[in-house]
Amino acid sequence: MEIIEKINSYEDFTSLTKEETSVLCGEIRETILDTVSKNGGHLASNLGAVELTVALHRVFSPERDRIVFDVGHQSYTHKILTGRYKYFNTLRKTGGISGFTNPYESNADAFVSGHASNSVSVALGMAKARTLQNKDYDVVAVIGDGSLTGGLAYEGLTNASQSKEPLVIVINDNNMSIGNNVGGIAYILQQLRINMDYLTFKSWLKENVFKTGTLYKVIHNSKEKIKAALLPNNIFTDMGFEYLGPVDGHDVNTMTNVFRHAKEMKKPVIVHVLTKKGKGCKYAEDNPDIYHGVCPFDKETGKVADQKASYSDLFGEYICEIANENKKAVAITAAMSSGTGLDTFKRRFPDRFFDVGIAEGHAVTFAAGLAKQGMIPVFAVYSSFLQRSFDMLIHDVSLLDLHVVLCVERAGIVGQDGMTHHGVFDVAYLSMIPNMTILSPASFAEFRDMLRYAVYDVYGPVAIRIPKDCEGRYKESYVSEERSLCSGTDITLVGYGSEINELLAAADILKNRGYSPEVIKLGILKPNSFKETLASLKRTGKLLIAEEVCDSSCIGGMILEAAEKANIQIRKAILINLGEGIVAHGDSAELRAKYHLDSASVASEAIKHLSENNE
Amino acid sequence: MEIIEKINSYEDFTSLTKEETSVLCGEIRETILDTVSKNGGHLASNLGAVELTVALHRVFSPERDRIVFDVGHQSYTHKILTGRYKYFNTLRKTGGISGFTNPYESNADAFVSGHASNSVSVALGMAKARTLQNKDYDVVAVIGDGSLTGGLAYEGLTNASQSKEPLVIVINDNNMSIGNNVGGIAYILQQLRINMDYLTFKSWLKENVFKTGTLYKVIHNSKEKIKAALLPNNIFTDMGFEYLGPVDGHDVNTMTNVFRHAKEMKKPVIVHVLTKKGKGCKYAEDNPDIYHGVCPFDKETGKVADQKASYSDLFGEYICEIANENKKAVAITAAMSSGTGLDTFKRRFPDRFFDVGIAEGHAVTFAAGLAKQGMIPVFAVYSSFLQRSFDMLIHDVSLLDLHVVLCVERAGIVGQDGMTHHGVFDVAYLSMIPNMTILSPASFAEFRDMLRYAVYDVYGPVAIRIPKDCEGRYKESYVSEERSLCSGTDITLVGYGSEINELLAAADILKNRGYSPEVIKLGILKPNSFKETLASLKRTGKLLIAEEVCDSSCIGGMILEAAEKANIQIRKAILINLGEGIVAHGDSAELRAKYHLDSASVASEAIKHLSENNE
Repeated sequence: MEIIEKINSYEDFTSLTKEETSVLCGEIRETILDTVSKNGGHLASNLGAVELTVALHRVFSPERDRIVFDVGHQSYTHKILTGRYKYFNTLRKTGGISGFTNPYESNADAFVSGHASNSVSVALGMAKARTLQNKDYDVVAVIGDGSLTGGLAYEGLTNASQSKEPLVIVINDNNMSIGNNVGGIAYILQQLRINMDYLTFKSWLKENVFKTGTLYKVIHNSKEKIKAALLPNNIFTDMGFEYLGPVDGHDVNTMTNVFRHAKEMKKPVIVHVLTKKGKGCKYAEDNPDIYHGVCPFDKETGKVADQKASYSDLFGEYICEIANENKKAVAITAAMSSGTGLDTFKRRFPDRFFDVGIAEGHAVTFAAGLAKQGMIPVFAVYSSFLQRSFDMLIHDVSLLDLHVVLCVERAGIVGQDGMTHHGVFDVAYLSMIPNMTILSPASFAEFRDMLRYAVYDVYGPVAIRIPKDCEGRYKESYVSEERSLCSGTDITLVGYGSEINELLAAADILKNRGYSPEVIKLGILKPNSFKETLASLKRTGKLLIAEEVCDSSCIGGMILEAAEKANIQIRKAILINLGEGIVAHGDSAELRAKYHLDSASVASEAIKHLSENNE
Repeated sequence: MEIIEKINSYEDFTSLTKEETSVLCGEIRETILDTVSKNGGHLASNLGAVELTVALHRVFSPERDRIVFDVGHQSYTHKILTGRYKYFNTLRKTGGISGFTNPYESNADAFVSGHASNSVSVALGMAKARTLQNKDYDVVAVIGDGSLTGGLAYEGLTNASQSKEPLVIVINDNNMSIGNNVGGIAYILQQLRINMDYLTFKSWLKENVFKTGTLYKVIHNSKEKIKAALLPNNIFTDMGFEYLGPVDGHDVNTMTNVFRHAKEMKKPVIVHVLTKKGKGCKYAEDNPDIYHGVCPFDKETGKVADQKASYSDLFGEYICEIANENKKAVAITAAMSSGTGLDTFKRRFPDRFFDVGIAEGHAVTFAAGLAKQGMIPVFAVYSSFLQRSFDMLIHDVSLLDLHVVLCVERAGIVGQDGMTHHGVFDVAYLSMIPNMTILSPASFAEFRDMLRYAVYDVYGPVAIRIPKDCEGRYKESYVSEERSLCSGTDITLVGYGSEINELLAAADILKNRGYSPEVIKLGILKPNSFKETLASLKRTGKLLIAEEVCDSSCIGGMILEAAEKANIQIRKAILINLGEGIVAHGDSAELRAKYHLDSASVASEAIKHLSENNE
């Protein structure tokens, strides 16, 4: 680690010789592998982008220019090269370095990242701002082939291509998004990859033409080759971009030259770079899917410690059970077959499994089409990514009251992935969608029952929100709006999902202190009349509700509204939640404590007010 | 009208001879022109799609097959041909025929429409459902070139192309979305249009090759021609579609043959059809933009009656004022330059005007990029279309607290466009976005002041919601959270935006009946402490709030929540709003009355409870 330790800033990097730069790449790879094996994080995508990022930094200044990373799960090298090597061991820890780019962390991070496909639009906005203000800096977007499957990327590209705005868009093509890449754009890129050697081909063709004299025949017989080579046109040139590539994404010098050329063109340019996910680490190269986002693992063998069963794992099992008995059930994922637990489903029911790419909007509208014609689509998707489908849920699903089932995964605090990944807005944005039923299981058994309830008993759109956490002490199952888990007279504690475990523990503390808390667990969040909760509040006069969601449109607010309508005066209302909903990354338990959602905080909040009241 | 009057069902249509069909097209055109000139509606797009729809109906059964119209503003011919000719004069009226497709209206309407770019995804879902259930029907999507600029269409296409699913996608290319078509996809379509005669060209090339013997030279000199003709590959074939076209979209017989061929291919097929917006009506052909969505007009001359100034008109004026004094201000529209009042801005500040196509997601993320680098972007967009940008508002704007200004037009009831166009969800989905300020002007003067406030005084994201209505009796301007317009002791009437006019009228009625109402107008909806409102409620104990929004997350609920937190007991709370938010089309005043939002209903609701209370 002799080179990397010298780099405290961009200036230190630019003064390196070519040889030192080459050594540096190995050291960066070692650093990433070392930290990710301890902290968990995105491995394969970051290992694949080492040389690409080094080459970018040789041509563009991360401080003066604006390098916009799409998704940001390839930005570790960028972080290491911009003064964050020293702190890199804090990656994804509470108060440590974020796993994604974040301008609050460093000016070198041009923009926030986490959700796919936004980089071209952001970069185009920045480039326009630069030109309108007569400033002099370059703007670069770095986008993976996976992110190109998202409609937002297409909207950005179609605008950028005709903008005449100097702008470099680097397509980091590893022939794979998170899982395998799908759809028409993947097919297009595959075709482009063939012309790695198109200059060679051009001279071959020339020779052949003059030899045979019957070019028509040559053309006819080599139509595809010619299209790809002699007449290189592709979706990007068709749109109006200059297209450079494909370039070997692990050859720093070639990439440096191509990036310099792209920069000098002063036009919208696409640079198509071919990289290998997991590059330089055998187990990651062989299993890029497993080592995309990964928990801590053994650095030598790659062995990931056994994980406790998660809600996502069980979703895979439960949905197979349903598909096995009901031929109408189909499963949809937006490039997250593994993350959402659908790998088994994919193997067992290939005809009824749809990976649509990073296209959550399409996933929902496609599901609406399926449902309209009698199928029962189940779309498994992370809470924060489902935000992309908001309009489709209203326009394509709710207006016709279609029976589309959403398995909303990673609802609530997700921990290390942070700000862009916490599932904290779904209760708010789903509860306002007409006809939507929202279910919140608190145990594996209840999840199984609620999934069956959603498929068999609900008509219309229905969402089941499941957390990233494992199961806690609550193991029962009752599919109901409300259920009192312990009756009491001093204060009404209300919660749902995993949080119920914290409330039960808090109730124990309260009882030990001589108080009498009632614990009410909500199961069906919408529709919910809050009848039992209101009855309890009539007795206790005090509400404490703890939720892992933003405060706007939280269930606590709905209960207060219902109480006011029912003329029930609540003497004290304690609404514990995540405030505006911007929550940093870190250990989930630490975050829960920070927001007073853990059992100790809940108990102490309750005691504070109960004792105040006694004074 | 001898032919059209015979058509009461699809069967009547299929029995027509070719000659009768040709006469029919003229009669349909006449019928559309006649009704739209009286009722208002979408003229140019519907006139352009007459022959296209007739040809579709000759090949596909609207009852057995599924024809999915994108946006639906080209579906009048389809409605007329499927048993709705008799009622066509009720178009867009309360209780009448919808201006968009709607399965609740007829089984011939395969899906709901109104928001652009969803048709391919819906059709793919339907086609998959058909195949999985071993059923036998065809699925067709009809999508305009404008809708192709939306990312959802791209997501749909990229999935459909690789699906192997029998599916016909008709691109209705009129070289224009609502305004002029923009971006890379428009450029691609433009190139395709050139090869109208590619078969002719092919033989020309063959001839030339064998004459000159130097094909390389021919190819070199005619590169573009060859790409387009001899080696037809384009974005669609690159994706994996079969591509047929371009076809003359006003030639019923040719289209019929091509559709039959497409149907028989049993694959994902694109049929590229060229049509002319406004076809057959000179003023509409000459000004397709003006006659896209139009108010009632003189059928002979096309003269549209003078309209009262709208908020959108004034937005155009006010934003020019700001742009003139501040070089950082830029305006963005998503293919709605005319609808949102930006036509003048476009002429006066072409460098700072951006029409991004029907791409609301990109518009917001592009604005975020501009704002991050110091510009002040103002995105003018209809409330219901901004739903497409929900995730971008959270991820790309709010997390970095960027100063992006949204002029949210058509907030509240929009009248004749109906279900998919009412702006009834924005208060809910905007109020949950971190850092968002929401302004609701109630007069033109206040709108001007609030727009300046948003540009100059707010830091972070800010939305100004303006209605489709004209100005009412309230003409003042106070940029403030709350303002009491008349103090009283019996009941607190609360409202914002245009609704304040109804409340003032209702207060007059109440005063005439001897009651003492207080009227509080909200201006800044978020952040708002509801201090004055709560103070008033302490006095009156009775709340009546009237809002043109859905009940979920309505301001009324927030006030109740605030009251409960402040321990203010409200004896009676009357929350008047639009319920779940699915509101049919019709006359705005009639809709307002239906939902008890008009002054008479508001007064009578208040009186009912005031008198109950006195008993």
